[in-house]
Amino acid sequence: MVVLNSAITIDCLQYCNWSRPIFDQMALGGVDAVHVTICYHEDFRETVSNFETWNRYFQIYSDRIVPGRTAQDVVEAKKQGKTAIIFGFQNCSPILDDIGLIEICHQLGARFMQLSYNNQSVLATGCYEEEDPGITRMGRQVIKEMNRVGLVIDMSHSAEKSTLQAIELSERPIAITHANPSAWHPARRNKSDEVLIALAESGGVLGLSLYPHHLKDAGDCTLETFCRMVAETVEKIGIEHIGLGSDLCQDQPDSVVAWMRNGRWTREIDYGEGSASASGFPPQPQWFDNNADFPNIRNGLENIGFTSAEADRIMGGNWLDFFQRSFGPDS
Amino acid sequence: MVVLNSAITIDCLQYCNWSRPIFDQMALGGVDAVHVTICYHEDFRETVSNFETWNRYFQIYSDRIVPGRTAQDVVEAKKQGKTAIIFGFQNCSPILDDIGLIEICHQLGARFMQLSYNNQSVLATGCYEEEDPGITRMGRQVIKEMNRVGLVIDMSHSAEKSTLQAIELSERPIAITHANPSAWHPARRNKSDEVLIALAESGGVLGLSLYPHHLKDAGDCTLETFCRMVAETVEKIGIEHIGLGSDLCQDQPDSVVAWMRNGRWTREIDYGEGSASASGFPPQPQWFDNNADFPNIRNGLENIGFTSAEADRIMGGNWLDFFQRSFGPDS
Repeated sequence: MVVLNSAITIDCLQYCNWSRPIFDQMALGGVDAVHVTICYHEDFRETVSNFETWNRYFQIYSDRIVPGRTAQDVVEAKKQGKTAIIFGFQNCSPILDDIGLIEICHQLGARFMQLSYNNQSVLATGCYEEEDPGITRMGRQVIKEMNRVGLVIDMSHSAEKSTLQAIELSERPIAITHANPSAWHPARRNKSDEVLIALAESGGVLGLSLYPHHLKDAGDCTLETFCRMVAETVEKIGIEHIGLGSDLCQDQPDSVVAWMRNGRWTREIDYGEGSASASGFPPQPQWFDNNADFPNIRNGLENIGFTSAEADRIMGGNWLDFFQRSFGPDS
Repeated sequence: MVVLNSAITIDCLQYCNWSRPIFDQMALGGVDAVHVTICYHEDFRETVSNFETWNRYFQIYSDRIVPGRTAQDVVEAKKQGKTAIIFGFQNCSPILDDIGLIEICHQLGARFMQLSYNNQSVLATGCYEEEDPGITRMGRQVIKEMNRVGLVIDMSHSAEKSTLQAIELSERPIAITHANPSAWHPARRNKSDEVLIALAESGGVLGLSLYPHHLKDAGDCTLETFCRMVAETVEKIGIEHIGLGSDLCQDQPDSVVAWMRNGRWTREIDYGEGSASASGFPPQPQWFDNNADFPNIRNGLENIGFTSAEADRIMGGNWLDFFQRSFGPDS
């Protein structure tokens, strides 16, 4: 059984340019688990290559990282002073049109999958589409299958109606691994109060984002401003539904954000949350520049009045509890 | 830890046309584990579809079969009166030219892989080639990687020199899951004494075949003749290196044996061990027609003088011990 460790730290979304310095910073920042994206637009075979890459990382960096397939793996990683790596897809491209690939990907270690990424997918609508017809026929089947095997539905980049329907259709709690309330900062990727309340009422968890485009004042957002937003969100949906999903893309070249936005689906350039004059990764807030900075967030939370126990829940306790409920077969 | 159960029955090679009647016969025959082929010529994506098919079988036939990934799974299956299904490939086609796919396939449950199937592969030579240059450059790397992750090297359909080299190069014991001594019946697929002795000296196991083309007198081979061959092989290489690998292809249409032999590699018809006038599956001996007939073999062994404990080793004890040593990472 999982024993909730009071000081556990979990980041529920990163896509860094992985290297020893980054894994060292995770150790320095006391990061016990990270949900890492291993697919934006890759098909099944390409995603398998990304699993292979991580199998290699687990060999090379065995002193720093271990595979994270269960909540217990996170607890064990912490005991060993290592970071558990949990795999997720930001899109449904790896499963092609084949529902059997959901279980295959779960067997290979995937634990989160977004039903759509910005655009319409075969399953759901993305947050940049003008129309949002909701969860598709295949989407309804896929939700059932993800529920069955324990692959968490993530609606971070999905549109409003699709997200509300996914919450309703799913028999297990879903996640929004990386987004902020749009009431605080009205970015297209942030979420309405209606979505956040429905998420919480169904037992889901929201990972609050530290990606500058999701922050009020972008990279100039202060730690206090961010933490006050956390407090407001706690008031709105309850502390047990809140964690972190930093969306940290450390050391990535700007070509990577172009890949995220454009994949292979367009010949014109889509700038997503950026613009032609600012097309690259935006600069991070100085208080959250890399994986060593997680203690700053804990300090910020405590400085505005969160108790240590409350900060524990937000820093990782809620995600650990969610992992425990979500990563295994439906019972 | 695995507790050697004295009455365990393991068949280390089948490729049946899977159905409830066959799984029922396994229960009737007391078959605790079967190594099933899930690839002859399929590439990676096609093999993944075959894993998917089995994931579905495990749901549909959950009262009869369970995934077999470890020796312990076999012991647990026996306790529950079920059959553990262990996956294997008869060829290296699933790994393409990508050594990382070995670990991926192991993660999906594969536990045996032949380095070549009748023909030359990128790794080794098959038993129907005229020339046998031995293990290739990639073959040497693949043997190391299979050793590392615990994917067993199977040389059942490989040529002499390649097989001897694989035994020598592999740092862990290998298997010949389904073949008989060519001294007994000189079929191209049967194995020389030199190979069998080298296999045994390295700690490997031979699965004796019940496929008519591998038997003296084919389908007319008597149970006593078969069991006397077992006794001769025990004299030759030691009882601890001998198990069963029936090569049972129950309920398969003849199109399947054509697929095994021809895959997609030829426009002319290759008849393999058959001939133009007898191109289909040969008829089984009447004492071994299906999975319910394993007790006949035990009786046959005891009737020619094997003790019960000796029959236990041949019927499954040796394979269980081999699985215990072979299916996990190299230590």
